[in-house]
Amino acid sequence: MFIDYLIESIKKKKSPVVVGLDPRLELIPDCVKKKYYDKYGKTFKAASEAILEFNKVIIDNVYDIVPAVKPQIAFYEQYGIEGLDAYIKTCKYASSKGLLIIGDVKRGDIGSTSKAYSSAYIGKSDIEGEKLEAFPADAVTVNPYLGDDCLKEFIEDVEKYSKGIFVLVKTSNPSSSQIQNLMSGDKKIYEIVALMVDGWSSNYVGEYGYSSIGAVVGATYPEEAKMLRKLMPNSYFLVPGYGAQGGTAEDVVNSFNDDGLGAVVNSSRAILYAYKREKDELVENYGAAARKEAMKMRDAINKTLEKHGKKYW
Amino acid sequence: MFIDYLIESIKKKKSPVVVGLDPRLELIPDCVKKKYYDKYGKTFKAASEAILEFNKVIIDNVYDIVPAVKPQIAFYEQYGIEGLDAYIKTCKYASSKGLLIIGDVKRGDIGSTSKAYSSAYIGKSDIEGEKLEAFPADAVTVNPYLGDDCLKEFIEDVEKYSKGIFVLVKTSNPSSSQIQNLMSGDKKIYEIVALMVDGWSSNYVGEYGYSSIGAVVGATYPEEAKMLRKLMPNSYFLVPGYGAQGGTAEDVVNSFNDDGLGAVVNSSRAILYAYKREKDELVENYGAAARKEAMKMRDAINKTLEKHGKKYW
Repeated sequence: MFIDYLIESIKKKKSPVVVGLDPRLELIPDCVKKKYYDKYGKTFKAASEAILEFNKVIIDNVYDIVPAVKPQIAFYEQYGIEGLDAYIKTCKYASSKGLLIIGDVKRGDIGSTSKAYSSAYIGKSDIEGEKLEAFPADAVTVNPYLGDDCLKEFIEDVEKYSKGIFVLVKTSNPSSSQIQNLMSGDKKIYEIVALMVDGWSSNYVGEYGYSSIGAVVGATYPEEAKMLRKLMPNSYFLVPGYGAQGGTAEDVVNSFNDDGLGAVVNSSRAILYAYKREKDELVENYGAAARKEAMKMRDAINKTLEKHGKKYW
Repeated sequence: MFIDYLIESIKKKKSPVVVGLDPRLELIPDCVKKKYYDKYGKTFKAASEAILEFNKVIIDNVYDIVPAVKPQIAFYEQYGIEGLDAYIKTCKYASSKGLLIIGDVKRGDIGSTSKAYSSAYIGKSDIEGEKLEAFPADAVTVNPYLGDDCLKEFIEDVEKYSKGIFVLVKTSNPSSSQIQNLMSGDKKIYEIVALMVDGWSSNYVGEYGYSSIGAVVGATYPEEAKMLRKLMPNSYFLVPGYGAQGGTAEDVVNSFNDDGLGAVVNSSRAILYAYKREKDELVENYGAAARKEAMKMRDAINKTLEKHGKKYW
């Protein structure tokens, strides 16, 4: 079951850190990009090759200190089919290094269309009885705006293929409050979504008491996280917004339960492009800079968890 | 401006019908699929080639009687990169026949990620100053759950590249009410989203009084459509759910304004796979069956509009 693999990896690596693989071409070192521009010109092919090389170096530098990576598919889709080729190869490479893959795809549609999305990302697609995998991932993020006939297609594949989903509950961006924080009766919309997630999650609880149906809860809203932790006791939280978006170790501690489990915290930019802040370091050592930053983040979160009596190791 | 191109095409072709290009492999005739299975085996490549051939025949049969097609990208993503290759080629072929493309992608994410999605689908991606197109479309559907810092990235490209967006307001599926119909104060969530759409739309109004910022309003909820028509007077509605999902010509009439404009109505399954209901017709004539069905739908809608005094031609 996805959630058990995740928790075992967190415990083994002593780290609830997820590295967000969000390739921003303008931030990838020239020493990586130049040879591909020389070879392929300023094309999607060159972008794709540069991204893949960059991602592999990051993965090589973090695979032993984090349980999972979270590629944000938008950053691959913008380079078309070639970009998605880099997405697939990145996921496969990360898997081969023992990392779990959380595909940040935020899909969601009406029933039969959601089924196609689920087949694409966590299930299999059927071609005359042949079951084939389109895009590899162990879990994906899902948008709840269309309600549960959208979600149930993903949940079927969670069950069938031992995968996971993280439903958007309270996102990390500034305008997330516009809809998610509206009051309906005595509850906010995100609380109502949380109760829906809690309802679905109870059937997919693994041996550590957590479910493969999780929730996205932004690091930038620690008070909301405290309340949501109570509403979804069995759901693992995927917590974006740490680092570049402003979330700190103290901000994310509310997303963890007293057992020190219950959340993984994602950072993308602050880890991937840490080399930009290392003035004394060679650009070529961007992988080492990312490792250092991921360790710093892990240590900060573990220390804060310990301080709050939430030790999981 | 996208919305003007759309309205001109509607008037010229006397048709507010959009054909949803949702390829379901199991419904595509064997005479199309078999040769590709023979050549490529039961693979994504075979699926992709079969879908492209099928789509081209449909396009050849409808391009003169409908203003736009709406490929649902989930049905292509499920066949991986090869499936997306069919998506791109389908869009390009439809464009070459004078059809507008509404990419049904339902994307939406935090600001910088939404920018990547927008670049992928209606904008351009930047590779060292080269501006390249990843996936072709004239307009796309967008999910509002993350609020307006998500939407504004798309709106920038609407302006820059003369494109359009349709924001999900009230979707056609059975469980759409779970979140969209919740009351907040004296309004439902979909009404609040509608007022947001109306706010954004006013800056992008073209010469017919309609905006390139439109809304998705399901045919299956005619009473809601009536109310939404008033809340978003300038927004074009993309109305899914006609035909296979149960929506009729009488159901969609509320989505139109008194000038007979204001909505395009999508049908996917009922048109694409019309050949399945034509017992006396050869399977090979699936394109002709689709044409017949699209004309029937056009005529039913036009007749109903005329009955309600909403003539646009």
